[in-house]
Amino acid sequence: MATRQEKDSIGYVEVPADKYWAAQTQRSKENFQIGGQRMPLEITHAFAILKKAAALTNNKLGVLADDKAEIIAKVCDEVLTGALDDQFPLVVWQTGSGTQSNMNMNEVVANRAHVLLGGSLEDKVKKIHPNDDVNKSQSSNDTFPTAMHIAAYKMLVENTIPGLEQLRNRLDEKAKAYAEVVKIGRTHFMDATPVTVGQELSGFVAQLDHGIRAIKNSLPHLAELALGGTAVGTGLNTPAGYAEEVAAQIAGLTGLPFVTAPNKFEALAAHDAIVESHGALKTVAVSLMKIGNDIRMLASGPRCGIGEYTIPANEPGSSIMPGKVNPTQAEALTMAMAQVVGNDVAINVGGMTGQFQLNVFKPMMIFNFLMSARLIGDACRSFESNCIAGLEPQLNNIAKNLENSLMLVTALNTHIGYDKASEIAKKAYKENSTLKEAGLALGYLTAEEFDAWVRPENMIGSL
Amino acid sequence: MATRQEKDSIGYVEVPADKYWAAQTQRSKENFQIGGQRMPLEITHAFAILKKAAALTNNKLGVLADDKAEIIAKVCDEVLTGALDDQFPLVVWQTGSGTQSNMNMNEVVANRAHVLLGGSLEDKVKKIHPNDDVNKSQSSNDTFPTAMHIAAYKMLVENTIPGLEQLRNRLDEKAKAYAEVVKIGRTHFMDATPVTVGQELSGFVAQLDHGIRAIKNSLPHLAELALGGTAVGTGLNTPAGYAEEVAAQIAGLTGLPFVTAPNKFEALAAHDAIVESHGALKTVAVSLMKIGNDIRMLASGPRCGIGEYTIPANEPGSSIMPGKVNPTQAEALTMAMAQVVGNDVAINVGGMTGQFQLNVFKPMMIFNFLMSARLIGDACRSFESNCIAGLEPQLNNIAKNLENSLMLVTALNTHIGYDKASEIAKKAYKENSTLKEAGLALGYLTAEEFDAWVRPENMIGSL
Amino acid sequence: MATRQEKDSIGYVEVPADKYWAAQTQRSKENFQIGGQRMPLEITHAFAILKKAAALTNNKLGVLADDKAEIIAKVCDEVLTGALDDQFPLVVWQTGSGTQSNMNMNEVVANRAHVLLGGSLEDKVKKIHPNDDVNKSQSSNDTFPTAMHIAAYKMLVENTIPGLEQLRNRLDEKAKAYAEVVKIGRTHFMDATPVTVGQELSGFVAQLDHGIRAIKNSLPHLAELALGGTAVGTGLNTPAGYAEEVAAQIAGLTGLPFVTAPNKFEALAAHDAIVESHGALKTVAVSLMKIGNDIRMLASGPRCGIGEYTIPANEPGSSIMPGKVNPTQAEALTMAMAQVVGNDVAINVGGMTGQFQLNVFKPMMIFNFLMSARLIGDACRSFESNCIAGLEPQLNNIAKNLENSLMLVTALNTHIGYDKASEIAKKAYKENSTLKEAGLALGYLTAEEFDAWVRPENMIGSL
Amino acid sequence: MATRQEKDSIGYVEVPADKYWAAQTQRSKENFQIGGQRMPLEITHAFAILKKAAALTNNKLGVLADDKAEIIAKVCDEVLTGALDDQFPLVVWQTGSGTQSNMNMNEVVANRAHVLLGGSLEDKVKKIHPNDDVNKSQSSNDTFPTAMHIAAYKMLVENTIPGLEQLRNRLDEKAKAYAEVVKIGRTHFMDATPVTVGQELSGFVAQLDHGIRAIKNSLPHLAELALGGTAVGTGLNTPAGYAEEVAAQIAGLTGLPFVTAPNKFEALAAHDAIVESHGALKTVAVSLMKIGNDIRMLASGPRCGIGEYTIPANEPGSSIMPGKVNPTQAEALTMAMAQVVGNDVAINVGGMTGQFQLNVFKPMMIFNFLMSARLIGDACRSFESNCIAGLEPQLNNIAKNLENSLMLVTALNTHIGYDKASEIAKKAYKENSTLKEAGLALGYLTAEEFDAWVRPENMIGSL
Repeated sequence: MATRQEKDSIGYVEVPADKYWAAQTQRSKENFQIGGQRMPLEITHAFAILKKAAALTNNKLGVLADDKAEIIAKVCDEVLTGALDDQFPLVVWQTGSGTQSNMNMNEVVANRAHVLLGGSLEDKVKKIHPNDDVNKSQSSNDTFPTAMHIAAYKMLVENTIPGLEQLRNRLDEKAKAYAEVVKIGRTHFMDATPVTVGQELSGFVAQLDHGIRAIKNSLPHLAELALGGTAVGTGLNTPAGYAEEVAAQIAGLTGLPFVTAPNKFEALAAHDAIVESHGALKTVAVSLMKIGNDIRMLASGPRCGIGEYTIPANEPGSSIMPGKVNPTQAEALTMAMAQVVGNDVAINVGGMTGQFQLNVFKPMMIFNFLMSARLIGDACRSFESNCIAGLEPQLNNIAKNLENSLMLVTALNTHIGYDKASEIAKKAYKENSTLKEAGLALGYLTAEEFDAWVRPENMIGSL
Repeated sequence: MATRQEKDSIGYVEVPADKYWAAQTQRSKENFQIGGQRMPLEITHAFAILKKAAALTNNKLGVLADDKAEIIAKVCDEVLTGALDDQFPLVVWQTGSGTQSNMNMNEVVANRAHVLLGGSLEDKVKKIHPNDDVNKSQSSNDTFPTAMHIAAYKMLVENTIPGLEQLRNRLDEKAKAYAEVVKIGRTHFMDATPVTVGQELSGFVAQLDHGIRAIKNSLPHLAELALGGTAVGTGLNTPAGYAEEVAAQIAGLTGLPFVTAPNKFEALAAHDAIVESHGALKTVAVSLMKIGNDIRMLASGPRCGIGEYTIPANEPGSSIMPGKVNPTQAEALTMAMAQVVGNDVAINVGGMTGQFQLNVFKPMMIFNFLMSARLIGDACRSFESNCIAGLEPQLNNIAKNLENSLMLVTALNTHIGYDKASEIAKKAYKENSTLKEAGLALGYLTAEEFDAWVRPENMIGSL
Repeated sequence: MATRQEKDSIGYVEVPADKYWAAQTQRSKENFQIGGQRMPLEITHAFAILKKAAALTNNKLGVLADDKAEIIAKVCDEVLTGALDDQFPLVVWQTGSGTQSNMNMNEVVANRAHVLLGGSLEDKVKKIHPNDDVNKSQSSNDTFPTAMHIAAYKMLVENTIPGLEQLRNRLDEKAKAYAEVVKIGRTHFMDATPVTVGQELSGFVAQLDHGIRAIKNSLPHLAELALGGTAVGTGLNTPAGYAEEVAAQIAGLTGLPFVTAPNKFEALAAHDAIVESHGALKTVAVSLMKIGNDIRMLASGPRCGIGEYTIPANEPGSSIMPGKVNPTQAEALTMAMAQVVGNDVAINVGGMTGQFQLNVFKPMMIFNFLMSARLIGDACRSFESNCIAGLEPQLNNIAKNLENSLMLVTALNTHIGYDKASEIAKKAYKENSTLKEAGLALGYLTAEEFDAWVRPENMIGSL
Repeated sequence: MATRQEKDSIGYVEVPADKYWAAQTQRSKENFQIGGQRMPLEITHAFAILKKAAALTNNKLGVLADDKAEIIAKVCDEVLTGALDDQFPLVVWQTGSGTQSNMNMNEVVANRAHVLLGGSLEDKVKKIHPNDDVNKSQSSNDTFPTAMHIAAYKMLVENTIPGLEQLRNRLDEKAKAYAEVVKIGRTHFMDATPVTVGQELSGFVAQLDHGIRAIKNSLPHLAELALGGTAVGTGLNTPAGYAEEVAAQIAGLTGLPFVTAPNKFEALAAHDAIVESHGALKTVAVSLMKIGNDIRMLASGPRCGIGEYTIPANEPGSSIMPGKVNPTQAEALTMAMAQVVGNDVAINVGGMTGQFQLNVFKPMMIFNFLMSARLIGDACRSFESNCIAGLEPQLNNIAKNLENSLMLVTALNTHIGYDKASEIAKKAYKENSTLKEAGLALGYLTAEEFDAWVRPENMIGSL
């Protein structure tokens, strides 16, 4: 492989001749051969946004020349097209401040700018300096957290929340479609008093409504940007008004309500915004786990399960059992949600272990955050399109279960009291008879009373 | 031990003669000899509130006679004084719906009422029936979640948030008192550019402000009460208007903004409100872990550590090392916060594993929630009073560290560029000299320039 | 409350006149009003064992007089009877080294010894010194970890493992009793090929066998005792041969194979033995969660569930639904196991956050360990006695499900191939017919072939 | 994109014309557009091993023709070279049994074999059938767990354990090299009695020794293979002797001690072996977190920290602070270990949520397991080569700290008692004097006694 020499404050390094990155990226590539999980591209692109915003702000505030600002902005736009994605080879498991990914961006922007300005990668002196120009008025310590917030916020509003809403709306549609289908309820996995299909599904809708609200509650903290704090939060080496202006630039570039963080020390030293927001994500994961489990259990069978719902058969279910159909979308959903619950703990550990002026678990934290946020959005969409969209009640089974249930006896409490009602249920269970037969045999009520009092359609409240 | 016989729908049970509880409590006591963690008293007291509210509501809506409602309310008030605390012997590890604790309350209220009305515990028929009267218009499935929300909400606003505010306010006071004490900053545990003591502490204040807000964001969901849903959420066996009225009664009795849950199916089948709110608690725990760790590290020494803060010596630190003083309050705080982070996972598992119309991990979930909420409140108060109230900067060490630091070189970036500044720092480190000496030796600036440019008091931004 | 004055190296403290504890215990009681969780009594009793062992060893090695050793040992024996349990009021949330609980023991032993020797608690000088005599050749830093290992080891072998074995043996008995009852298997919660009840239950037995082995694998590390390391692991202030001798004494007193830790630095600075052993406990918790869930689902019904097992009805299941019976033991079991999984994370956080020569999350770690170990043992016993002992197959439902199942078609794979078998199953499902009818209609086999090939009793392997 | 039609039991699907996969792979690709995490290649390769072993076994037992077995084995060998890696496009978030990845392998092997035998991908009938030939005597339900165990076992012995040993050995080398360098010890982050550098490092070595042993303890359960259980554990559709023979084949192909699982029901329905083994991995992660933290704190500075160790400067540490050097390897290590601790929870959730005859969280569980196992191995190697290999004690700082420490006073306990020693330490601290000065001033000992008794080199035990 052809290489060229690049230099940083430690010395010379051989870099692939055709790559825009320079010494510090190369050092990281060599020194951190761990795991293989690449720094998420969402972070790379968020960096492009903030580098452009910083260049424009530096220019506006008079500390960066027009031509430099212009070319930096231009390269950032190029990064945002994805055309330079292969210039960012670093992994998550690097320095905990993400300095190396910040420098990767600084180096690529500087060198690409140099080339666009007519220079050669072999030139010893470049027209744009990675630190003095591209990183001007910045530090890894404020850029990386800024990139974290930009990437997290965008993922939530572009993927996670829309995915949740898509699933929520389909469940709501199904709840309304089957609002009056009365079925047996189940508590403790045991037969209980009736509900409607609509009521059952409305509980899921309410869960998702609450979850979406919880995620939205976490957005304002994520909207706070660390940029302008530089090395330790004091804003050393930034021009007056920089922090507010650069946040406004980022808000403008993204169309999202980003503001400068009121306290930069918190914004560098802690990532409570990430912890808090992921707390909302794991709450949603807990909801989705319950929803996925209920759906697969209610659709179980086809002949030896509960079988009150049918879901689409998207693929052969078994390599050995012919004709088998499985609730595979529910499985993918619940597996993904288990991952989110695990990721939450990784994020907690990272969040709690920061020290003094800087948290150094940044790449790990955002890696987990973005994985979770994407998994929720993607899995909800997949579950909606490939499963819930085709969900239907199995009316035969529903009717059969409803009429067999002993828990309809509960309707008698207010007429004959809990103790006598209990005797009826026990007798019917023991003798494998109907409630009516048992009730009459015990002499606690007449056939007419039974028929008037025990009506499933009257046991489901007002719809 | 003298006993009497009590009966439930399964049969007769021997119960201690002098206890108000009856058959179902006794069965639970015998059948669940697990662990020893008692159902939290906060739940017992929350049950007393809701039973009173239900009796008043039932009476108002015409389904419970005046005298019954009156005596039930009277016993509930007695429970709230704590006088009957020893009548609730059940443990957390019982049925997952908390039915047995609901029945414990029903039995104690019924029997105590019977005695207050002149009856004897030996009477076979009691004047108040545990199910038909005390539990009227209720189910364990809606009362237990209601008790969970009442107890959780009260703990948060009476203990957790005030404790956090107490600590937050003291840190803020200290931040202001030492707003202008310049000290070395640290990133990656390594010397960095300066901050003030006030800035360092302000980051903690910002963390707690965000945490308190996150907890408050979770209160509206906790304010939703399941009561009125009865067995499966449909409200079977409740009179019209019951759910709204009983929530209003509870709001009146507690002075807290409780409302009836808009969707009772969610309120019984899931405990996302608990999961969400505990997500906020664990976020705060992550913050407090960071704060506690920083304080103990900054106060380390007395001679071989960082030693920039002093904290009170509340007790001898060692049974073998004479004169040793340890950051014991920080240790208690961080241990408690580790517990909260663990409790969060237990709550997640409980929240995700509910099925159909009922989550049956209720007692475990509220046990963990209340433990966490109390630990945060108590530990913050203890940490504030016994540690932060006495925190002071060690000015000698702070000054010594500041003047030795090589990272003051950062101030030169905007004057001579990153690369030359870097050379100065490296030379000073290598030769164990001052930055000024190294800078002059390299010829990159004059002594006057150095003195003008490298001034820690100018490196901390605007205060 | 009457008090007396006690003194430590910081000064005088008022102590309840009738308590044996002295200044340091009292300080801790006042300075750590957090949470209310008391230091587990198992730790107190383990301390009594090790203090006695230390006194005997000190005496044998010539650094403690006969009379002092004798009276210290005598008081330790008294502690072990439980008679002094109310002399140990401290909570878990104290100093992270447990120094205050060590001093609590030193103070109580010294003062109680003084009284037994005829002195008065009011005497300014006591005949036994808490540090110089009771704590001789010890530090909190080696005694507390030693107490942790003693308490943990004893709990595992006296409660956890016997509880697991009791459940395992009962499941094995049931597996053997129903070894030949053929029932439908279920994968993905969907009907699959047949298994026997015995096979199904044997999977649980295998899980528990593996879990018990995993716990036993962790015992050797727990058998290593830190005692003899004193303050930092070097054994400062101990006589030659002390560490080995005191471990032997403890082994003798407990009848358990304790040895001195080969590396005392690890034994003080880390608690990997606790982390590792609790890793085995959470593995068992994961197994028990699966077992508890399967049992409750297989026993679901009575009329609208799976209903292939019956379990005992130990108590009325519902306060509103008469005659309802719930799988309450499975619920208690699974709630307890969710707690264990949460405790595991608390222990991880504690284990990872130790620093330099001492981990200071000791009380929190052992609090969680003992909670988990006891919950597993207790919950297994309760589940065994109150649930599994009465478990029976519901033969009617089992037979009905088996004959309805479409997955018996799998037996045809080796005769007619997967694709044709699949067609048969799909046709039968679609037309709600039997496999045989569908197979004949498709012409893929004769009635005789079907009867010969599709025999559930031949699909279960060799028993 | 050119496509061809492929068919499965559900119908026809368009598949990329140049790919070997067929209908079921394509369906999964389209139906599960979630997250992007590919099924680990280690699983793909493990499948190749087991498919080859199954073919050889089927042939040996007379149920698969020579030519079919031969060509299947040949394609499996080709998969193992990596040449077909791009034929396995499926993600982790698919069906929870991994059926689709099993079918992906079956389809690729069948079609590739068909081509190698001279056929065309366009042929409607292929010479090798994915289910009837490649999957013969198998089910996804036993192959996927078998692949999990093969991949996990190989990763542990080929990457994880060697990485741990490399780090352990280097730490041991350093411990021996600096066995006699006396330094101050620290407990509670506060100055304590002395240790040597060798002793300090030896604690890390002991941790890793225990951790490696814990991992090895988990290998026997991982060595048990599910293959031969087929759909539900009964071994339906396998020839006699198959399970034992195929395990022996896999043992032969891998050189690892695989055996057939004694209980196949456990091996399909639970993944306790994965949970247990990952419990060992998280124990090691906890150890490594402690080690990484200690190293970075002991190397802190260069002028305002603890500064007792130096570690290599591998790259510029800051984009804004010139000359800064950071403990980046420790950061990568601790970030990776936080991930492992989070992954553990994901695995627990997966392990506990399986149902009846099959756990359907398989792909998620092995995804996390392999990530953790690789992260530990890789991070240890990186940390060893790029950090610990260059670790050196900073003798100046070590000496300065040692002589300043007040905790040397502990040596006086056995001569003058704890109380007087405590007075000396407090006086010296208060007056900022030496211990000797304070001791003489208090008249508790002579200068000669002090010099004889207080000798750090005598306070470190026998080396």
